[in-house]
Amino acid sequence: MGMHAYLQGLSNLETLNRAPGFFKYQEHTVAAHSFKVAEIAQMLGDIEEIHGAQVDWQRLYEKALNHDYTERFIGDIKTPVKYATPELRHQLAEVEARMTQNFIKNEVPEFLQDRYARRLAEGKDETLEGQILSIADKVDLLYESFGEIEKGNPQSVFLDIFRESLTTILLFRERPSVQYFLKEVLPELLQEEFADRDRLLRATRELLPADL
Amino acid sequence: MGMHAYLQGLSNLETLNRAPGFFKYQEHTVAAHSFKVAEIAQMLGDIEEIHGAQVDWQRLYEKALNHDYTERFIGDIKTPVKYATPELRHQLAEVEARMTQNFIKNEVPEFLQDRYARRLAEGKDETLEGQILSIADKVDLLYESFGEIEKGNPQSVFLDIFRESLTTILLFRERPSVQYFLKEVLPELLQEEFADRDRLLRATRELLPADL
Amino acid sequence: MGMHAYLQGLSNLETLNRAPGFFKYQEHTVAAHSFKVAEIAQMLGDIEEIHGAQVDWQRLYEKALNHDYTERFIGDIKTPVKYATPELRHQLAEVEARMTQNFIKNEVPEFLQDRYARRLAEGKDETLEGQILSIADKVDLLYESFGEIEKGNPQSVFLDIFRESLTTILLFRERPSVQYFLKEVLPELLQEEFADRDRLLRATRELLPADL
Amino acid sequence: MGMHAYLQGLSNLETLNRAPGFFKYQEHTVAAHSFKVAEIAQMLGDIEEIHGAQVDWQRLYEKALNHDYTERFIGDIKTPVKYATPELRHQLAEVEARMTQNFIKNEVPEFLQDRYARRLAEGKDETLEGQILSIADKVDLLYESFGEIEKGNPQSVFLDIFRESLTTILLFRERPSVQYFLKEVLPELLQEEFADRDRLLRATRELLPADL
Amino acid sequence: MGMHAYLQGLSNLETLNRAPGFFKYQEHTVAAHSFKVAEIAQMLGDIEEIHGAQVDWQRLYEKALNHDYTERFIGDIKTPVKYATPELRHQLAEVEARMTQNFIKNEVPEFLQDRYARRLAEGKDETLEGQILSIADKVDLLYESFGEIEKGNPQSVFLDIFRESLTTILLFRERPSVQYFLKEVLPELLQEEFADRDRLLRATRELLPADL
Amino acid sequence: MGMHAYLQGLSNLETLNRAPGFFKYQEHTVAAHSFKVAEIAQMLGDIEEIHGAQVDWQRLYEKALNHDYTERFIGDIKTPVKYATPELRHQLAEVEARMTQNFIKNEVPEFLQDRYARRLAEGKDETLEGQILSIADKVDLLYESFGEIEKGNPQSVFLDIFRESLTTILLFRERPSVQYFLKEVLPELLQEEFADRDRLLRATRELLPADL
Repeated sequence: MGMHAYLQGLSNLETLNRAPGFFKYQEHTVAAHSFKVAEIAQMLGDIEEIHGAQVDWQRLYEKALNHDYTERFIGDIKTPVKYATPELRHQLAEVEARMTQNFIKNEVPEFLQDRYARRLAEGKDETLEGQILSIADKVDLLYESFGEIEKGNPQSVFLDIFRESLTTILLFRERPSVQYFLKEVLPELLQEEFADRDRLLRATRELLPADL
Repeated sequence: MGMHAYLQGLSNLETLNRAPGFFKYQEHTVAAHSFKVAEIAQMLGDIEEIHGAQVDWQRLYEKALNHDYTERFIGDIKTPVKYATPELRHQLAEVEARMTQNFIKNEVPEFLQDRYARRLAEGKDETLEGQILSIADKVDLLYESFGEIEKGNPQSVFLDIFRESLTTILLFRERPSVQYFLKEVLPELLQEEFADRDRLLRATRELLPADL
Repeated sequence: MGMHAYLQGLSNLETLNRAPGFFKYQEHTVAAHSFKVAEIAQMLGDIEEIHGAQVDWQRLYEKALNHDYTERFIGDIKTPVKYATPELRHQLAEVEARMTQNFIKNEVPEFLQDRYARRLAEGKDETLEGQILSIADKVDLLYESFGEIEKGNPQSVFLDIFRESLTTILLFRERPSVQYFLKEVLPELLQEEFADRDRLLRATRELLPADL
Repeated sequence: MGMHAYLQGLSNLETLNRAPGFFKYQEHTVAAHSFKVAEIAQMLGDIEEIHGAQVDWQRLYEKALNHDYTERFIGDIKTPVKYATPELRHQLAEVEARMTQNFIKNEVPEFLQDRYARRLAEGKDETLEGQILSIADKVDLLYESFGEIEKGNPQSVFLDIFRESLTTILLFRERPSVQYFLKEVLPELLQEEFADRDRLLRATRELLPADL
Repeated sequence: MGMHAYLQGLSNLETLNRAPGFFKYQEHTVAAHSFKVAEIAQMLGDIEEIHGAQVDWQRLYEKALNHDYTERFIGDIKTPVKYATPELRHQLAEVEARMTQNFIKNEVPEFLQDRYARRLAEGKDETLEGQILSIADKVDLLYESFGEIEKGNPQSVFLDIFRESLTTILLFRERPSVQYFLKEVLPELLQEEFADRDRLLRATRELLPADL
Repeated sequence: MGMHAYLQGLSNLETLNRAPGFFKYQEHTVAAHSFKVAEIAQMLGDIEEIHGAQVDWQRLYEKALNHDYTERFIGDIKTPVKYATPELRHQLAEVEARMTQNFIKNEVPEFLQDRYARRLAEGKDETLEGQILSIADKVDLLYESFGEIEKGNPQSVFLDIFRESLTTILLFRERPSVQYFLKEVLPELLQEEFADRDRLLRATRELLPADL
């Protein structure tokens, strides 16, 4: 058994849309999202390193690149936000974890199983690299929702997502990379011309700490 | 609380693809599949009635039309065939059933809750109408896989699906509607011109009982 | 001759778009529209029955499900509203009716021809079920135009369609199901957040009778 | 009244597909088809002129470019081949012609009405330019069906269309441009590598006159 | 060597999008754009001729129809506006011109090479027909950007393109066809109902000469 | 100036198709390709490391992830294989390199310019990581062409690409990762069921060295 099943699975991720039927202007595949998160993590890692942190780049790229590979097994569950209780969501996560185990046992050759068990496990841990993944995942979601808002999509759900993404990013506000994002990147984003700019500016201001 | 959430949910089913990324020539939405299953059930019901069975038409249409509405809540789980154990699949079904309960409680007015609990429950029971639903669901899947085979898709998975659909249909071979399907409809389907006809004919012959 | 041609025709309805090139955010196929109309008719039938009417459920589902099957033969004629006189539109309807006759004669086995002549005939008659079909067809069109308005489509044609759909629904305002739609469903729809809500509210108010 | 309605109508032709749901590999819009027919007519006109014919180029381009503009009004009627009698087809053509008249009267300023009446009328007359249009229209259809055959579409209907297109082209076999097409272009097309080449070669051979 | 490669290349232009990923509501292929430019040039030619100009119709149609055929060779270079210097843009044009030469030498039979060298060369020269092509190309771009603005796309880049197109058209304001466009067509376009009409009216007014 | 322009550019790569109009069954975006190449490089790096090589993982991920970012500036030039001379292709590469320089100067803050100049430069150098990138880029192309062949696309161009990809991979046959690919992955790929397997097996056998 070689790695053919793993490699062929990559092309599944090219056809699997994130939140199917949700984005109106631009759909996003799991493959493209993974690429963007890795690119964003790379930039955040730059800032951390320049500010003196020790970045384990191998770990960082590995976490970012592989963090959604397991969506192959269970798909992107259709927004079960409203009708799923926390307990139901927990059950779903467990099912996914066990399918991943089955996949590794069946499709990855033994001498690589440890590496892929690590890569396909939850990457958002307490390490610096795990934190950068958490931030990068939300920066991409913030850009995805901004893409809809910028193009004139008036549904308030995209403003909600923008707000929630920013809220999660702010949990890490002590990190220099988040400081950089808030001070240098976000203002440029908000200076783009688009229809509902005032509403987005207001929503952003309400979330930002007073000193920003 | 009126039925707005239920009605608006119908348009979700227009954007939810069956087995996303699987069909190569023609994608099928859950809405279109539900329509086709109801049309097929209608024809099977005709044959049963003409052969003397008592068809409860209200129940039949209701079962066929609503049998996949709950895919809204959990989506069409990405072919977890290979890496899910029976236990994992059972867990997923349970999660779906409980999300459906939550939906009915939150979105359907009380005086209609009984009706929708019945409509959104599993319809494939032992009644005549439940059996027709089981058959119709597989006849549509057989046509969907045939659509790929007919247009030249060489992947053997479509032949597998054709075979499995036919196998399930044959479980009901005592039903006059299945007899009619096997004797009058299937031969017409097999007479269409397409590339890999011999392989499909062979696969079909192997499954059919000797007297057909 | 079995029913293969009829069944295979179902998949044509999956690829036939309603008003091609018209909807900007979400296209609707004839198959999906038929599904939604049957679901809406089911809900309207519930209300009528609960208010004491005798609903012939078989007839109701049958009418709703099959009411656009014949679009297979002539397609969804490209908005001939502006340049067709009533006489030209009448001629087109006649051509469609005669193609349907030819289809039944050529493709439906004799013992089923009566059933399908009934199902493929115009269903919007004076019976309760015919009225519910007329209402359900417009409720779906109202939701389809609302789908565009809600997502920010500023073209006034969608407001026109919303208005015309509501006008037709109001022709049946004595029916309890229409009362229910106006009092319980429409207000929920209008409470959704979307860009041009005031304009839609105004247009709706102008059409609704004073006591609603 | 200026020509805005006419110009805006051009973008309708960009969204109107020829035979919707028919081509599996590549869809063709009416706009793109009109472009290709004009390009093909240009090449056929070259050959005719080089062989001594007097080509009225203005007329030739005009006929080719505008020959399907009127599909805006009635759309591309869904293959009514099987269930329409000649009489029904005649009626449809008449409806289209009268909608075109209504359009010209309502949307084209008076001083241009003669020009557009000529351009939107049937162009396939007995003149050299009318003949070239007939040929070019079929050469494009032949290429469209070849596009499906070449890419492996096994449905025999594309071979039928290839054959019918060639049959119509052969009606004009005395024309030098058709001679050129048969001797210089068709053999190159048949030398492309594709799956079912033998079948296409055989079908072509059966149609070609013995001396070709 | 016949003209098969040229004809088959036409279908490339059906799949080649103008400015891929740029238009949000309606994509435009090079084939459809060429069709529309030829239709617009035809109308502009009408006006010029009626005002007494001598129109070489063969040259006019030929220029309009073929003006983007060479995009086959180099594609529609991804908006290199921002990061390309004039010198880089000049280099790209030269590469394209030389690929076109190579194509004519390799794929067009010798007796037609002069004709196609003329047709595939830059058509926007100082002749009346060259000027009409320049105008028609921008009228189509103006309509393409208007298509986005009209449907509610709030990105200011479409207003910029509208403005730049109009600016180029105004360079030819002495031409009767441009006078006609400004006085009869543009006001009709601006009377369409759409969201951001005031902004578009303002932008238009600022560009138009005082006497219009 | 922050990194907003860089991050927003990522979403351009989601809409930029590789070789537009070329793949018939599955299109591939530049973003998805970059993701897959990074995943493949990760697996090849595993094998190299296990066989004792010193892998600079940061450099490897960085090269793989960013190797096509610059396609944003010039797009994926439309197969200029046939009509471009080597000199023309060289000129195009130079134009792209200089646009990249302009981009870095204008859009990347000074303290990051060195990092991005390195990341956006040509990555396929003589280092181990550069070699792995060259291999991974071709493994993905091999899988992309196999995707078409497997699904029945009969056009010989996909076999040509499969062959050319394999030929390039074989240039690195001394590398343990290539050995592993040839001995463990490729045989699994060739064991998949698909139509033209014999032809692919033959083509592969002709390329493989005798001892494999």
